Amino acid sequence: MQSLGRRLFAEWLGTSFLLAAVVGSGIMAQKLAGGNVAIALLGNTIPTGAILVVLISIFGPVSGAHFNPAVTLALAARGELPWRLSPAYIVAQLAGAIAGVWIAHLMFELPLWQVSVTQRTGGAQWLAEGVATFGLVLTIFGCAAKAPSAIPYAVGLYITSAYWFTASTSFANPAVTIARSLSDTFAGIAPAGVVPFIIAQLLAAAAATVLSGWLWRPSCSQSS
Amino acid sequence: MQSLGRRLFAEWLGTSFLLAAVVGSGIMAQKLAGGNVAIALLGNTIPTGAILVVLISIFGPVSGAHFNPAVTLALAARGELPWRLSPAYIVAQLAGAIAGVWIAHLMFELPLWQVSVTQRTGGAQWLAEGVATFGLVLTIFGCAAKAPSAIPYAVGLYITSAYWFTASTSFANPAVTIARSLSDTFAGIAPAGVVPFIIAQLLAAAAATVLSGWLWRPSCSQSS
Amino acid sequence: MQSLGRRLFAEWLGTSFLLAAVVGSGIMAQKLAGGNVAIALLGNTIPTGAILVVLISIFGPVSGAHFNPAVTLALAARGELPWRLSPAYIVAQLAGAIAGVWIAHLMFELPLWQVSVTQRTGGAQWLAEGVATFGLVLTIFGCAAKAPSAIPYAVGLYITSAYWFTASTSFANPAVTIARSLSDTFAGIAPAGVVPFIIAQLLAAAAATVLSGWLWRPSCSQSS
Amino acid sequence: MQSLGRRLFAEWLGTSFLLAAVVGSGIMAQKLAGGNVAIALLGNTIPTGAILVVLISIFGPVSGAHFNPAVTLALAARGELPWRLSPAYIVAQLAGAIAGVWIAHLMFELPLWQVSVTQRTGGAQWLAEGVATFGLVLTIFGCAAKAPSAIPYAVGLYITSAYWFTASTSFANPAVTIARSLSDTFAGIAPAGVVPFIIAQLLAAAAATVLSGWLWRPSCSQSS
Repeated sequence: MQSLGRRLFAEWLGTSFLLAAVVGSGIMAQKLAGGNVAIALLGNTIPTGAILVVLISIFGPVSGAHFNPAVTLALAARGELPWRLSPAYIVAQLAGAIAGVWIAHLMFELPLWQVSVTQRTGGAQWLAEGVATFGLVLTIFGCAAKAPSAIPYAVGLYITSAYWFTASTSFANPAVTIARSLSDTFAGIAPAGVVPFIIAQLLAAAAATVLSGWLWRPSCSQSS
Repeated sequence: MQSLGRRLFAEWLGTSFLLAAVVGSGIMAQKLAGGNVAIALLGNTIPTGAILVVLISIFGPVSGAHFNPAVTLALAARGELPWRLSPAYIVAQLAGAIAGVWIAHLMFELPLWQVSVTQRTGGAQWLAEGVATFGLVLTIFGCAAKAPSAIPYAVGLYITSAYWFTASTSFANPAVTIARSLSDTFAGIAPAGVVPFIIAQLLAAAAATVLSGWLWRPSCSQSS
Repeated sequence: MQSLGRRLFAEWLGTSFLLAAVVGSGIMAQKLAGGNVAIALLGNTIPTGAILVVLISIFGPVSGAHFNPAVTLALAARGELPWRLSPAYIVAQLAGAIAGVWIAHLMFELPLWQVSVTQRTGGAQWLAEGVATFGLVLTIFGCAAKAPSAIPYAVGLYITSAYWFTASTSFANPAVTIARSLSDTFAGIAPAGVVPFIIAQLLAAAAATVLSGWLWRPSCSQSS
Repeated sequence: MQSLGRRLFAEWLGTSFLLAAVVGSGIMAQKLAGGNVAIALLGNTIPTGAILVVLISIFGPVSGAHFNPAVTLALAARGELPWRLSPAYIVAQLAGAIAGVWIAHLMFELPLWQVSVTQRTGGAQWLAEGVATFGLVLTIFGCAAKAPSAIPYAVGLYITSAYWFTASTSFANPAVTIARSLSDTFAGIAPAGVVPFIIAQLLAAAAATVLSGWLWRPSCSQSS
């Protein structure tokens, strides 16, 4: 494992690229899709899934490539990341996520500072976020148990799928949720929806962590 | 191999995620595609293929990741699953499939209980289901013989293809067929079509199992 | 390597599934795409690339998974397949290709016997077939030299790409070309275009075989 | 490592196929997409990402499969390619890129000699090229450090993503940029935009090379 500075920088940079890809491809896709939202979502899904494979492959050996406070907390709960490091990880992820949104805005000549007005709220959306995060954490811990080298592909494919099968298009990540509230574009979420999304994500991550401990004997992990 | 409880739970949970993905992405895709059915089918195909790779990767080491009574029976016939376990596997798959459909309905704020009215019937459709299941079982046993670690990718890619080249969009799974009769959405099938589909699937699975035993010497299997 | 009967059967069955996928997904895609040919081609490309990965993975260890007379002849020229076997391989591929087209017609309730009227002719098309086949043979021998286990993925991805970048949509296979002349659907080719396509394919395969022998030292092959 | 002639030929041929795929699929996609630019970009993205995986897989063991002067210079700066070889590499890449554009024009019956009129200029575009190239070089060196066999897939997936999330659709390659100025088709760039794009690409490649040296201990490389 690398020095702490390198690890935090990797979390910052990786989360920043992730959000630039999510928000940037959303802007591009919506701009080009001529009003067909399914085509726009395809043009948002494929780049997101693809960049996740790349980012987890290259930053995994440095920091574990969490890019996600829910994953960081789940790994801490499993004893695979010291609890005392988790706040720094989460701060790096948040700062990276916001930087990534701003880079996307700059590349597409949009105002840096924006606040989304896309309402994403209600029980069905919260259930969708719970399902999305539950599945994401199972994907990580399920692969970690037997085939850790498959994690980048499994996470990329899982999010590719979850963009479509969850009614919320699968945020599944508190840092992503907060950062996307700062973009009034295709991928945005109005700030009022952020806290309930994060609560659903953390509850689901906790449930999936407990379940994973029973389903798969932890033997190696994403962060090792 | 894991304890029986863990295995059955993995079959239940995996089949449940599979159906949530199939039905959920069908609902999302149809809602967004603006009447272009090819775009809707793309938005249904990509998430289905992707989630299959993930689910087989993570649940394979626990239960074998059948998620499909036809596969369970084929493995029993090859002596790779004790016959006495197959009824419990099939019940877990059916219960999971129905739970997955209901979760999709809940996420998209649709009535839990639905019955499909989409007619899928006639000789051409039954032939399509036979071809689809025949190819699926060949895919599993062909990979199992030489490259079992490729099974998750091969099955995901096979179904990605079969959604388009079979006229029935490739159910290829009795539990999936029954569960999809309970969703009056993009992925549905009217109940009258269920039994002939299942007969075609089981006949094709039997033929593919016999043929596989001749084509590839069984040496290791998906469930080991 | 398997007995000759098993090898020929694998060539027959694999080529049959390949053509069922190419022609079947073409029919489905055109039927659903509402006149947008790019969407139809996407719905034809993705299933074709995906099934190639599967078919080469499962039939490769049995017969080498050529499914293509140009590949069979190239391997014979490299001394990796006895010349005396190549006629039987080619007959099996042709019979399989035609059977696959007919299965696609049956699944979609179309007349079994059809002759395409889609004109595909002229120097630009022949150049395109040459480029397509040249690249396909380079892909196979380039992977065979260093990473034979990557061949299924490389061939699937190559054809996925070549469907779009060659003006002919990349037949690149004499058996496929002949069989597709027997389908008056999306993937068809009028019979008058068949012979020039095959000449272009064989010339390009010969050139690529010579070049490959210089670029990569043959050490192992697709058929071993 | 191979003889110099073989290496330069591999760079020439690989870059030629890359540009034939980028420009050819752009022509095909635009022709078929009926004015929906998002669908055209999908039909340009998927073939580009797919061919990159293939070309890097087969030419990597011969020449390192740079296909990109920015990558060649970055590898020279890391001491993994002798500086004295880099001019020959770059000439081979440029000649190959232009040949590839011309082959695409020939296949689609377009005039060989064209000059693009698509304006791609301004600070946001230059930032986009910087981000695109920065990420590409990180992808290569990040994989090279720990999993060099993943480079073909990582680069293919990275460009798949970057086509959408960067406002410039990610040229990220000086040879590609120059060659695409010679095609007045979907993938073109007016000549006035070429030099600033290349400056942005080279600055970003330099920054990514320095950063990579800190983030990952160089131990093996794409070209070894």
